[in-house]
Amino acid sequence: MAKPNVVQAKPARKETGEAVLTISSRNYSSWSLRGWLLLRWSGLPFQVTRVANSDAAARAELLQQASSIRIPSLSHGAVQVWGVLAIAEYLAELAPDAGLLPPDRAARARCRSVSGEMQGGFAVLRAGLPVNLHAFRPNFPLWSGVRADIARVTEIWRDCLAGHGGPHLFGPRLCLADAMFAPVCTRFTTYDVDLDPVSEAYRDRIMALPEMREWIAEAKQEPELVSELEVDGEF
Amino acid sequence: MAKPNVVQAKPARKETGEAVLTISSRNYSSWSLRGWLLLRWSGLPFQVTRVANSDAAARAELLQQASSIRIPSLSHGAVQVWGVLAIAEYLAELAPDAGLLPPDRAARARCRSVSGEMQGGFAVLRAGLPVNLHAFRPNFPLWSGVRADIARVTEIWRDCLAGHGGPHLFGPRLCLADAMFAPVCTRFTTYDVDLDPVSEAYRDRIMALPEMREWIAEAKQEPELVSELEVDGEF
Repeated sequence: MAKPNVVQAKPARKETGEAVLTISSRNYSSWSLRGWLLLRWSGLPFQVTRVANSDAAARAELLQQASSIRIPSLSHGAVQVWGVLAIAEYLAELAPDAGLLPPDRAARARCRSVSGEMQGGFAVLRAGLPVNLHAFRPNFPLWSGVRADIARVTEIWRDCLAGHGGPHLFGPRLCLADAMFAPVCTRFTTYDVDLDPVSEAYRDRIMALPEMREWIAEAKQEPELVSELEVDGEF
Repeated sequence: MAKPNVVQAKPARKETGEAVLTISSRNYSSWSLRGWLLLRWSGLPFQVTRVANSDAAARAELLQQASSIRIPSLSHGAVQVWGVLAIAEYLAELAPDAGLLPPDRAARARCRSVSGEMQGGFAVLRAGLPVNLHAFRPNFPLWSGVRADIARVTEIWRDCLAGHGGPHLFGPRLCLADAMFAPVCTRFTTYDVDLDPVSEAYRDRIMALPEMREWIAEAKQEPELVSELEVDGEF
């Protein structure tokens, strides 16, 4: 059973082999960031393999993989699991004490609902404000569809923070929903989006996490820059 | 613990109240079909509420809700859960014996992976061959992107059927992955898509399920017909 006050999960490394997470770009790939955060928070030791996109063929492969949501992918012993939600559920089973899912059933249902909404929705936000950790674009034009998506994202954040006491979306532990919305926090920073004070404070807390700083620092070391015209929304 | 040989889950009705599933169109909404199948297979008693799309405002609301993946939605006592994957996880917790997730951990990870791939990918297939249970369109033109998605879907089917012995994707029980791909089976029927024999037989088994026949019969009773130009891919 879950013991939500235990911070560190026991790694399952010896039983099931070393875990390897395959990601694409740290700079552009929101999905890679989500998967990596979940692995970090699970406590499972893991290595990262990056699909290079430095030549045209590899890039095409990367884009094709991303379009069918096969990045990130986790290899762990005999288990192969891909897609952020599937990886999260797998890690939550392996490390039930890590807090990746809230211990309360109704909260867990809500966490999965808003995470699914981020997975499948917000197409306008994703296309209009692509993740780009290299960039800073103040005064970026936000058309109405983007504004509607921002309104829904911040409505979710305010509801969750009010309902579960913060500082994270479902209370004291960082969970799946925080990982799902972390790339949105980077977008709101990159495009300098005006937010209500509650949402802004949440965004700032996520951006200040040591894991986020580490990821962003590594993203800035990546040499590849993709033409913005090639980035068809988020990948 | 899961007892995969027990067919019928005990309904949690008395503890947590009557479940209500909100769907949109039976004829056009693949997501509604997926949620409804999962409820049926869970054994939980439930009622269906349909968001009418017979006037412009309701239709716009429906489309907006669908775009953020808030249909289907399940209300169950104090729990509100939306999106097919979140509903599936909730039902699998309530009815662990219903087989919505495979009992083996590696199979469960694979089931969630291919289900997530269906949730987030196959955009070309979804846009090119929209669900329309009223229609039958033999010799429908399939452009190359649609063919690539069909090839990946049937690759998943063949791998799962070979790896788990059939007759369903993960063995003898109908599970989340079967629900996720059920609307694809209707597409392959509507547009009379040529399939390899293994995939065709699987498609036919799904289409022959009593639940599928019931859903399709009800879909044909729905009065609303949406202009195809209005249907922006799948909703």
